[in-house]
Amino acid sequence: MSEFENSNPEELWSLFRDNELTKQTSGMCDGYTQANLVVLPKKEAFDFMVFAQRNPKPVPVLDVTEPGEFEPKFVAPGSDLRTDLPKYRIYENGELIDEPYDILDYWDDDFVGFLLGCSFTFERALIDASIPVRHREEDKNVPMYITDRDTTSGGIFSGPLVVTMRPIPIEKVVKAVKVTSRFPRVHGAPIHIGDPSEIGIEDLDVPDYGDSVNVKDGEVPVFWACGVTSQAAALEAEPDLMITHAPGHMFITNRKDEEYSVL
Amino acid sequence: MSEFENSNPEELWSLFRDNELTKQTSGMCDGYTQANLVVLPKKEAFDFMVFAQRNPKPVPVLDVTEPGEFEPKFVAPGSDLRTDLPKYRIYENGELIDEPYDILDYWDDDFVGFLLGCSFTFERALIDASIPVRHREEDKNVPMYITDRDTTSGGIFSGPLVVTMRPIPIEKVVKAVKVTSRFPRVHGAPIHIGDPSEIGIEDLDVPDYGDSVNVKDGEVPVFWACGVTSQAAALEAEPDLMITHAPGHMFITNRKDEEYSVL
Repeated sequence: MSEFENSNPEELWSLFRDNELTKQTSGMCDGYTQANLVVLPKKEAFDFMVFAQRNPKPVPVLDVTEPGEFEPKFVAPGSDLRTDLPKYRIYENGELIDEPYDILDYWDDDFVGFLLGCSFTFERALIDASIPVRHREEDKNVPMYITDRDTTSGGIFSGPLVVTMRPIPIEKVVKAVKVTSRFPRVHGAPIHIGDPSEIGIEDLDVPDYGDSVNVKDGEVPVFWACGVTSQAAALEAEPDLMITHAPGHMFITNRKDEEYSVL
Repeated sequence: MSEFENSNPEELWSLFRDNELTKQTSGMCDGYTQANLVVLPKKEAFDFMVFAQRNPKPVPVLDVTEPGEFEPKFVAPGSDLRTDLPKYRIYENGELIDEPYDILDYWDDDFVGFLLGCSFTFERALIDASIPVRHREEDKNVPMYITDRDTTSGGIFSGPLVVTMRPIPIEKVVKAVKVTSRFPRVHGAPIHIGDPSEIGIEDLDVPDYGDSVNVKDGEVPVFWACGVTSQAAALEAEPDLMITHAPGHMFITNRKDEEYSVL
């Protein structure tokens, strides 16, 4: 539980803006949708939109700004993408060059900001349905794996599908599919249930990102498309400059999770 | 019933390509998803993607081609957007200048093709659920109305929301909401149920496009977002050149309607 669990997004934007808070956002502003940030120059932005359109499960666009605009006015009016996240990452030609607390020095007036859905939203729905979320129980980051499935390329962007894994008790797997299917804009239904080798994962204990978690007897590994897919694709494309949130340091919108439910 | 009800899409692409068939596509290739076509130069395409992202109900993108590509390889591999529709419309600076059977003479190698979801898909689901679709019973075009609600602007694109109306027996309204909610990529759930004046429609008998239909005793007018919204916005933006399908002369994909169901 975060001490900021019951804060509202405006309060936290302000703390992030003043660098009074620079922590991971997990557990903050309970019930409000958190989002991945990707910022690209306009010349790459159309390609990224096409890539997102073709890969809606790993790359669900919640909001996109006009070139040069830094207020995501549909999901978070009054906020500023340049300052209102706790920490950022700056990539130049695909290489990490900086991890600042704001991006005012890097911002250019042809930059386009993308906010992408994040699985925090459906994890809350799983917990509400009494389905365990192991990495939360173990206070870890979710395990993420690079699969042998390719995304569908769009312009300069392509790469493998990255997935998250949550161990689900076998009698709750159907329920987990139903619950997450309600949220297509935050990765939606699983892309695979069961044998990891079917999607090219050799060892569940060795995730490519995040932490490994315990899979108990009677549990089945269930895999969902992951937002890191778009970062991997963007880095492979090596745009001149790309800015993202630092892992776990998400943007907090002031839209409620349930607004992204389809039913 | 169309004599091409049981044809497959490949057969019809070929007939359209050879101009052996130039009719409206309603009822053709039963079970296959039909789509609206919008073609724009690359310089307007990013703005249109942003407009679509912000208005997913009226402007659901099923496929988008890379600049210069005319094969929509995800929803209709092997087809050609330049020839495989029965009839097109060419707009120059927002004015209709031609209605040709192919667009080979107009095609430019920076053109981007958008295929947008069409309500034919959810109408089939309504009929399968024993919910009447009046304009089909009366062998008319669906009535369409310009509302007093604005779309969310994206780049150069903005304009009013255009809706379709279907009269639904009052005891079947909930079912109609549920059935169409399953298809968010072809306009999804209704945007309004009941009193037309609530959304700025003065007279149901005088639609802005299409034909008026009979609303019987015990029926409620139900309104869904309509693909004409994007054409209206595109024409208002007056791009140098824009190409669309001719009304009712849709592109037939070889994806099945049920592939667009979320549940």
